[in-house]
Amino acid sequence: MSNKSDETSSEKKHTFTEHKLHHDADPSKERIYMDYNATTPLEPEVIQAVSEALRDAWGNPSSNYVAGAMAKDIINQSRQNVARMVGGKAEDIVFTSGGTEANNLVLHTALEHFRKTCRAAGEDHLNGSSGLPHIITSNVEHDSIKLAAERLQMDGKADVTFVSVSKVTARVDVEDVMAAVHPNTCLISVMLANNETGVIMPVQEICQKVKMLNKQQERLRILLHTDAAQALGKIHVDVQELGVDFLTIVGHKFYGPRIGALFVNGPGTETPLYPMLFGGGQERNFRPGTENTPMIAGLGKAAELVTSNLPHYQSHMENVKEYLEEQLQSVFKDKIHFNSHYPDSAVLPNTSNVSILGPALQGWRVLSRCRRLLASVGAACHTASGNRPSHVLLSCGVASAVAANALRLSVGRGTSKEDVDAVVEDLRDTVQLLELKN
Amino acid sequence: MSNKSDETSSEKKHTFTEHKLHHDADPSKERIYMDYNATTPLEPEVIQAVSEALRDAWGNPSSNYVAGAMAKDIINQSRQNVARMVGGKAEDIVFTSGGTEANNLVLHTALEHFRKTCRAAGEDHLNGSSGLPHIITSNVEHDSIKLAAERLQMDGKADVTFVSVSKVTARVDVEDVMAAVHPNTCLISVMLANNETGVIMPVQEICQKVKMLNKQQERLRILLHTDAAQALGKIHVDVQELGVDFLTIVGHKFYGPRIGALFVNGPGTETPLYPMLFGGGQERNFRPGTENTPMIAGLGKAAELVTSNLPHYQSHMENVKEYLEEQLQSVFKDKIHFNSHYPDSAVLPNTSNVSILGPALQGWRVLSRCRRLLASVGAACHTASGNRPSHVLLSCGVASAVAANALRLSVGRGTSKEDVDAVVEDLRDTVQLLELKN
Repeated sequence: MSNKSDETSSEKKHTFTEHKLHHDADPSKERIYMDYNATTPLEPEVIQAVSEALRDAWGNPSSNYVAGAMAKDIINQSRQNVARMVGGKAEDIVFTSGGTEANNLVLHTALEHFRKTCRAAGEDHLNGSSGLPHIITSNVEHDSIKLAAERLQMDGKADVTFVSVSKVTARVDVEDVMAAVHPNTCLISVMLANNETGVIMPVQEICQKVKMLNKQQERLRILLHTDAAQALGKIHVDVQELGVDFLTIVGHKFYGPRIGALFVNGPGTETPLYPMLFGGGQERNFRPGTENTPMIAGLGKAAELVTSNLPHYQSHMENVKEYLEEQLQSVFKDKIHFNSHYPDSAVLPNTSNVSILGPALQGWRVLSRCRRLLASVGAACHTASGNRPSHVLLSCGVASAVAANALRLSVGRGTSKEDVDAVVEDLRDTVQLLELKN
Repeated sequence: MSNKSDETSSEKKHTFTEHKLHHDADPSKERIYMDYNATTPLEPEVIQAVSEALRDAWGNPSSNYVAGAMAKDIINQSRQNVARMVGGKAEDIVFTSGGTEANNLVLHTALEHFRKTCRAAGEDHLNGSSGLPHIITSNVEHDSIKLAAERLQMDGKADVTFVSVSKVTARVDVEDVMAAVHPNTCLISVMLANNETGVIMPVQEICQKVKMLNKQQERLRILLHTDAAQALGKIHVDVQELGVDFLTIVGHKFYGPRIGALFVNGPGTETPLYPMLFGGGQERNFRPGTENTPMIAGLGKAAELVTSNLPHYQSHMENVKEYLEEQLQSVFKDKIHFNSHYPDSAVLPNTSNVSILGPALQGWRVLSRCRRLLASVGAACHTASGNRPSHVLLSCGVASAVAANALRLSVGRGTSKEDVDAVVEDLRDTVQLLELKN
C-alpha cells in the first residue's frame, strides 16, 4: 500500500462535511477535523469487523455450542491482537468498557493490594490516617485518574501525592516521583503522554527505579501503571520496555471503537488484579458481563492496524505536524507560541498546542469563529470549563494569558498538507477579524 | 407489516447455519436456535443504527462543535427511546456497559445510601456487625446480583438475606420478603422474571408494601430494584406501575447490542445514585467515560422496536411456545416434565424449561447429541457447572433427578412452528438414540 493512496482513501472520513447539515456541497466549506486527541474516526476495516460481528457473531460467548464458539474465537483473536500491539501476552489483556473503567480498576486494585498485603503482614494500617494506602500520580493526568484519586482522598480511603510536572520540561521529574515514595505507597500512575501538550513522560525511568525499591523484601510492592490512551497508535509502546504492571488501552483514540482494555502483567499471578464488578465469570472473573463481541472485534482490528502500520502513521503525522507548525510560524511570526515545545521533551507526533498572542484571541473565541477548523482548547471532557485557561498548561509553566489563548491541534492519519493550508488560512482570517473588532 | 412477512424476513438470522462452518448448505441440517434467553441476534434496524453511528457519529459527544453535536443528538434520542420503553423519563436513564455493571451499581449505591443516611442521622452503624447495611434479594437471581451480594457479605460490608422462592409457585413470597425487612434494610432487589424458569416475580406487590413502610418518617428508606433483563421485549414493563426506584436494562436480551442502562427514578434527586467510576463527567457524572455512541444508538433503536411491536412479539412467542409444549407433550407423553409450570405463576411468553425423564437423559447429554437444536441447560454464564442440576430449579422444588435433565428452551421473534417441529423431531431422535445406548 502506497502512502499516497492510503492518504487519499482516508481523507474523506476525516472531514466533517457541513453539507450534511447545510445541504451545501462546496468542498471549500468542508470542516477540517484537527481534534484527533479527543477522538478518532473508525478505520473502514474496523467498521467492517464490528459490522460482521454484529451480524454473524451475536451468540453468547459463554454458550456451549457453535454460536458461542464463533464469538469466543473472535474475542480470543482480538485479545491476541491487542496484546501484540503493546508487546504483551494475550492472557494479560482484560477487556473493559473503556479507559475510564480501566483507570478506575487500577486504583481499586491498588487499594485492595494494600489492604491484603497489610492483612497478610498482620499490620492494621487501616485504622490510623497515617496508615492509609498512598498513591503517587502527576498533576496533569486525565480526569479518570485525577478525579478518581481525588475522590479516594476526599473519602479518606487513600493519601494521594500529585507530583507537579516541571515548568521547564512539562514532564514529571523522576526524582520528584521517587522523593514522594513512602512506606505505604502502593501505586504510581503516570500517563505515557499528555493529552493536551503531547509531552511524553519518563515512565520507563520511573519503573526502573521503583523496581529496585520493590526488590527490598520488607517493603510493600509498589504497583506501576501508565495510562497509554494518547500514546497508542502514535508512538511505539511496549510494556516490557516500559516495565509497567498495568497499561490502559482506549480504542477510540487509535481509530478503534469505544471500548478499552487493561494490560496487566500476569493478572492474579504476577500482578494483583481485584475486580470492581461481580457476575457471570467473564474475563476470568476479573471483569464479568457478557462480552461486547462486536466492539472487541473492532478493537482487535484497530490494534492489528497499529501493529502493522505504526511507522507509517507516525512519520505521516510527524510530517504534517511539522508543516503545520512551520506554516503557523510563517503566518503569525512572533505572535505564535508553542505550548507543546519544551527543551529535551519528546512530544507525540500528532499534537501541537499553540497560542496566538493577543488580547481578543482566547482559544474558545478563535475556535467559535473559525469556519473550517474543528479543534478544542483542551481535553474534550472539560467543555464546561472551556473558557478558563487549561490547568495542564498552567502546570507546565505557560503564562495565564498565553494559556487562555491555547488551541490544541491534533492531526490524524489522513490529515493532509492541504488541510493544514486551509486551517492556517482559516486561522489567519479569523484572527484578522477578531483583531479588527477589538 | 403482516406477521407472515415479518417472520419470513427474520427467520434467516435466527438460525446458526452450519454450512458456514461445514460448507454444507443443506437446510435440513441448519441449527435451530432456542436460546434467546442467553442472547438474541440484533434486529437489522439495530445493526443499521449501530453501523451508521460508527460511520457518521464518531465525534466525541463532549466536543463543542458539529461532530460532538451529532453524537450528542443520537445519544439523547436513544435515551428518550429507552425511557419510553420502560415508561420513564429520559433523564432517568443512565447508560452502562451492560446489566452486570447496572446491577453492581445498584448494590454500590445501596451501601453508600446506608452510610450517608446513618452519617446524616449521627448514628455510627458501621462499627458493629449488627450495624451493617442489609440487603434483601431472592435465591434465584442472576450472578451479577447473587455473586455481588455474596461478595459484600463475605467482605463484611453488608448483611444479605437471600429469600427462598416458594417451591410451589417458584416466586418469592411477598410476605417472606417483608418478614426479612429489618431496620438496616437499605435495598430490596428482586428480578422481574427468572432467566431459567421464566417465572414472573411479584415486584409490584413488594414495592407497594415497601412504600408503605418507607412512609414511616424515622426509618431508613428502602430502595427498590428489579433486574428486568429477561422481561424487556417479552412482557409489558412499566416502572411507574411497578413502583421501582431502579430497573436494569440489558440490550442483548431484546435484539439490541451488548450494552445496558439503569433506570433510576430521578437520579440524585428522587433516588440516590452513587457512581462507581470517576472521570470526565459523562452521564452527569453518574457514569463517566466517553459515550459508546454506536452501541447507544443501537440500544435506542432496539427499545423503539419493543415499544412499537411488543404485543406482536409477545403473542407470536406465546403461540410458538404453546405449540412447542403441545408437541413435546404429544411426543414424550408422561416422560416430559415442565419445570416452568407452577400453579398461579405467570411465565415469560418465550420460556419453556423442560425435562425429558430417564436415567441417560441429562440435559447436557441430550443437547450435546442434538443435531439441530441449540439450547442450554441454564444460564449461559454457568457453562463450567453445566453438568450439575441447576440450583434455580432445585430452589423451585424440582427434584434433583428431574432438574439434571432440564433443557431451557427459549424461543424468539422469528422462531416458527416449522422450527418447533424440527426441534421436537431432533429431540425424539436423540432421546431414542440415548435410550438405546443405555
